[in-house]
Amino acid sequence: MNGCSVFCVSDHTGVTVEAVARSVLAQFPRLECSLITLPFIDSADKAQAAAARIAATPSALVFSTLTDPSLRVPFHHAGLKLFDVFELIAPAVESALGEVAIPSGGRTHGMANNYEARMDAVNFALNLDDGLNPQRLGQADLILVGVSRVGKTPSALYLALQHGLRVANYPLTPDDLERDSLPGVLLDHLPRLRALTLSPERLAAIRQARYPDSRYASLAQCREELAAAERLFKRHALPVIDTTRMSVEEIAARLRNQS
Amino acid sequence: MNGCSVFCVSDHTGVTVEAVARSVLAQFPRLECSLITLPFIDSADKAQAAAARIAATPSALVFSTLTDPSLRVPFHHAGLKLFDVFELIAPAVESALGEVAIPSGGRTHGMANNYEARMDAVNFALNLDDGLNPQRLGQADLILVGVSRVGKTPSALYLALQHGLRVANYPLTPDDLERDSLPGVLLDHLPRLRALTLSPERLAAIRQARYPDSRYASLAQCREELAAAERLFKRHALPVIDTTRMSVEEIAARLRNQS
Repeated sequence: MNGCSVFCVSDHTGVTVEAVARSVLAQFPRLECSLITLPFIDSADKAQAAAARIAATPSALVFSTLTDPSLRVPFHHAGLKLFDVFELIAPAVESALGEVAIPSGGRTHGMANNYEARMDAVNFALNLDDGLNPQRLGQADLILVGVSRVGKTPSALYLALQHGLRVANYPLTPDDLERDSLPGVLLDHLPRLRALTLSPERLAAIRQARYPDSRYASLAQCREELAAAERLFKRHALPVIDTTRMSVEEIAARLRNQS
Repeated sequence: MNGCSVFCVSDHTGVTVEAVARSVLAQFPRLECSLITLPFIDSADKAQAAAARIAATPSALVFSTLTDPSLRVPFHHAGLKLFDVFELIAPAVESALGEVAIPSGGRTHGMANNYEARMDAVNFALNLDDGLNPQRLGQADLILVGVSRVGKTPSALYLALQHGLRVANYPLTPDDLERDSLPGVLLDHLPRLRALTLSPERLAAIRQARYPDSRYASLAQCREELAAAERLFKRHALPVIDTTRMSVEEIAARLRNQS
């Protein structure tokens, strides 16, 4: 069985089960799987229909986060290979704690908590993107600094959406770098500054995609800006993250870990 | 054991293990847990140090995604209650497939794939936020429409960051609603339009937080705008999502599911 269809079945969004399926399947490199997510399978009818659909698919695997054990029954009945996160993990927790798990309807699956705070944080990140509204920097949990296209905006938005952190971002322009000093408005907020950097080659490639053959995108310009920025980071002893080989999740995890 | 400290230990970002821990712990409502994430535990030394730190904490539970089994050893040696996602799930997959899992260093944990596409999608969402650059709507995977503050921007950004979808969003202004027609630029793109709505009470509360006591935030105005927008959605048979009780993950999952 090399090719296969992996179904991620959830009574909620499917975010958790997709992450688990991807992680576990990475340990089976010979499998070439396509991933299909079936979210909101939260009734007996929907579970029945999903199980029938999957049973009609050859070589199917099913990962699931189905809180209510009765919703797993149709999948087991259909003879499917079902790996339910709760079924496999909850018993270990039960026996360690000496407590019985109470299926609760999946209300707190995944990261669906503190919605208001996260939406406020998204608005904050947008309002304080790229140096906007510097008079509000005092309200930020973190302030990301770095040269243009180093990854400040996506990192700020991810921290806002995922963790409800209020993250501003502030660019270091060629002017700032020539003056060889941090923009004045940042000096009041040094403890909350976090610096991002990148390899010159990577930065040039990113800029190249937007402004082909510009001076802005040239390797020489990128090298110069990054070197000048890194000197500033060092002088102010700012924590620096090199994002060259990092996903936005990794950048966010490192930023949270530092703070 | 009612109060407890839950450590989420990962050799990568910790996004997956946090989601699993929250989901499983929701089934033990009598526990009141604080969650501490220890990401990037990817060497024997770091695992040893993390295990020592946790062992010094009373009533600790450990959820982990440690791909390399040797990194779990210090936790087991310290006598900790360790629930490792791989340890608990991989054997079931192995026996179903008749294949042996190969620990691969956590490189594809979670959602850290297609970084470029996701960053492009974030830029796209920002460039086509709130009706900007309508000449590029043809490049969108989805176009979210709705009245002001209904949740278009966070939903578009989440779909971009998490799934690499290019999502534009376009507001329905009081002028559009008075004319009782969709903005002309949207008519070419009807199959990709997705409508968001909300309860008038919830919308008024959200607007109230930004513009207290304005006409814009009044319940009457919200009610009127939403009713007019919903008539338009109906006339054009647009798929509608009522986001009143939904997290951004739920909105995103429903939008993906429709498309």
